Parts: sequence; C-alpha cells; structure tokens
Amino acid sequence: MSDSRLQEVLDRQEINELMAHYCAALDTMDLSRLGRLFTPDCTVAYGPDPRLQACGNAELTRSLERMWRWSRTSHHLSNVCIEFEGADDARASSYVLAWHERADGSTATIYGQYRDVLRRQDGVWRIHDRRMLMNGCDAGFKVDIFPLTRNAPPAGWIAPDIDKV
Amino acid sequence: MSDSRLQEVLDRQEINELMAHYCAALDTMDLSRLGRLFTPDCTVAYGPDPRLQACGNAELTRSLERMWRWSRTSHHLSNVCIEFEGADDARASSYVLAWHERADGSTATIYGQYRDVLRRQDGVWRIHDRRMLMNGCDAGFKVDIFPLTRNAPPAGWIAPDIDKV
Amino acid sequence: MSDSRLQEVLDRQEINELMAHYCAALDTMDLSRLGRLFTPDCTVAYGPDPRLQACGNAELTRSLERMWRWSRTSHHLSNVCIEFEGADDARASSYVLAWHERADGSTATIYGQYRDVLRRQDGVWRIHDRRMLMNGCDAGFKVDIFPLTRNAPPAGWIAPDIDKV
Repeated sequence: MSDSRLQEVLDRQEINELMAHYCAALDTMDLSRLGRLFTPDCTVAYGPDPRLQACGNAELTRSLERMWRWSRTSHHLSNVCIEFEGADDARASSYVLAWHERADGSTATIYGQYRDVLRRQDGVWRIHDRRMLMNGCDAGFKVDIFPLTRNAPPAGWIAPDIDKV
Repeated sequence: MSDSRLQEVLDRQEINELMAHYCAALDTMDLSRLGRLFTPDCTVAYGPDPRLQACGNAELTRSLERMWRWSRTSHHLSNVCIEFEGADDARASSYVLAWHERADGSTATIYGQYRDVLRRQDGVWRIHDRRMLMNGCDAGFKVDIFPLTRNAPPAGWIAPDIDKV
Repeated sequence: MSDSRLQEVLDRQEINELMAHYCAALDTMDLSRLGRLFTPDCTVAYGPDPRLQACGNAELTRSLERMWRWSRTSHHLSNVCIEFEGADDARASSYVLAWHERADGSTATIYGQYRDVLRRQDGVWRIHDRRMLMNGCDAGFKVDIFPLTRNAPPAGWIAPDIDKV
C-alpha cells in the first residue's frame, strides 16, 4: 500500500519534469529532444487549423519548426494537476505563460493551458495526447489556439461601476 | 515514522492541487466549484476595502461575481511553500501572476501572493483563511490589494548610476 | 530502498522551497535571509560583467543591494527540475519570470532560468553555485544576463508567411 503511494509520488515528479522538459526543448529549439518526450503515435492539437495539429512525434517535430519564426521564446509552466487512470496511464492539466519575440523585436504572449494524456512506455512517461487551450493573450498574439470555455454571468448581472474591486 | 512523512508528502500534493483548482475555477468562473474549495466558515481578504473581503464561502462566491467585469482572466500560481501545524492544519504561501482583460481589450496584471491557512475537514483539505498581497502591478491594474512590505535601503545607500547591473 | 526514495522526495521539496525562499527574500529585500540560503563559499554569476558576479554569500548580499534601484520586484519561479549527484549534492534548473519597477513607474521584465548546484551542509540544503540565463526580455530590461543558447534553423529553412500558426 505505502509502496504504491510512494510510486505514484515518484510518477508525479517524473511527469512534472517531463512537462518542464517540453518547455526547455521548445525554448532551445532542440526538436529531436522534444520529439522523444511524446509517444511515437501521439496526437497534438494547439488549435482548429490543421497546421496546428500533428499525428505522431515525427510529424510533430516537423510542424514545430514553425517556432523558428520567433527569435526567442520562453514557456513558464505552472498549476500542474495530475490524475492517474492506471499504473501507466495519467491525465494532466497545467498552465503556461508563453512569451514570444519576433526578429523585429515585437512580442506576443499567450496565457494558456495544456490538457495532456500521458502514458508510460518502456518504463518512461511520455505525452500521448496534448491539447492546448487559451485563457487569454495580449494584442500581439494572433495564433488561433482553442479558447477556454468560461461561464457567462447570470441573466441580469450588473457589473460594479468602479475599477477598484 | 516513514508513513507519516509519506502522508505529509501526499498532503502537500493535495494542497498544491487545491490552490491550482482555485485558479482554474476563477478563470472559468465556476463559482460553485470555487466555493467548495473553502471551508464554510472561511475568511478571505484581498484588500482593505470591505468589498474585497468575505466571511464564509457563500459570501465569497457572491462577492467574486465581480470577476465577471473582466472578459478573460488567467491566474498562474507558483513558489508554493507549505508548513504543517498539525495533522489537519497547515499554512501556505504562494505567488500568483494574475492577468485580466476588459471587454474593451485593455488589460491589468498583478504580481501577487496568497497567504493561506488550510484545514482538513471530512478528509479534504480546504482554504480556511486567505489573504492576498501585491508585490507589484502594471499601470492597468487599479484594485487596492494589500501591499507587500519591503525592506528599505540602509541610510545613505546610493543607487548605481547605470541600468546594466 | 523505499526509505531512500522517500528521502529524495523530501529533499526535492526542501530544494523547491529553498528556491522559492530566494525569490521571497529578494522581493522583500531581506538580504540577510537571502544570504543564509547560499553556502558561505558560494559562487553566483548573473552575467559576464564582474559586478553581476559574487564569491561567497557575504559578497553576494552586498552586491544584491543593487536591487534597491528598483522600487518593486516580483520573481515567479517554475519549471523546476532536480537531479541528485549524491546524498548531499544536487543540480537544478528552473525558470523565472522576474518583473521589476523603477521609481518612475517604468518596468523591466526578464524571462530567465537559474542553473544551480546545491549542497546539503549541517543538514540544510543551500545554493552553492548559481548561474542565470536569459531566454528573453522586454524592451525595458537592460541588464546583461548570460543569453540562453538556442539552436538555429537548418540551412534553407523558410518561415511560414503568416502569423496564424
């Protein structure tokens, strides 16, 4: 009992670091390292445009070459939540603040989320399915990421008339 | 001995995810879910204005309806530190980068902290008392959050005359 | 076996909080607390300029008095990865979003990383060597932090001609 709970703690740590490694590989554009973080038959969708989707880690790393249109990026990961669905299966949600700079110095920031399905294969946790959601973004960010669904106010709700609360 | 240390690790994980769930519930404006993350007799204070304070989770969720004046928000939690004061009592501090957008597209970002008292009731960790502090904010953020206290320089301290260090 | 794995989990927690305490001490300018987070014979380098480097925690806290030229700061730590090299030796990498405000209200934000060597001395984990890297920064940030190395695109790579992907 205690041993299986400890194993889950260790699995959480490995999954946390896996998700941090994705950010590090993307920010250094080490795409071969990035590809190895996903299962060979992974599916990834950042948005509805087919160019923002990939099947398999080979297609994923090819499609992520588009990130070279940015001169610098920084992906700050937080709010990681993990649920296990089996000894080798898990789901995770996380937040990412992703900053991007173009060669002309202009920038684009997205405040987003990843929703992941994770699998352990050959003793190593990998991302099997990743979907990205957008909580919000600044005016410079134009990529069509899936929007987060947010509850609407109840009918008749009136906004407070001041900015202080 | 070892079992109690493992239990504390599991408790930390649950508290970490509790704090992430608060962010997720706020960003989706799922206020009934948000209310269940707090004890029924919780106290919450974001700032000195009584409208920024609440007693009990029912009052809290009602008062947080004010967040609908923003069209989109994103709360990025990090720097989580937890100390246990008993098997079912803990204190936590954390950092939050909270981005907010108005319907007109203007934005407001606060760089803040949460200081929490946590209690386990009926086997579930909940926030019993939350106080927010503001490290800083951008020009668009006008809400009167409690300011962080920062040590002043010693008498006679002279700022370096350049911006490079 | 199980006990040593649990000990490593506890060590990771302590190192995570050590790194958060650095941020908290810097944002409150509690430099004596900050100094105690480093080994007495630590080495720290934020950039190539000798004024951005320090040997020993006494020199470090003196040199960090320069942070008083900012009126407010906020250091948001994430993406923490830790590898152990012995029972009392570890290496860590982490991301930091560091926001700074000048007395005139202008701001400077860096999206960076810390690369740390950690040592346990007298039963307490401390930072023994810290090097900072810069993924990117906004136009207001002028400090000469070591730049992150990023792979260049392959010869002949053509950027997509649109901003949507």
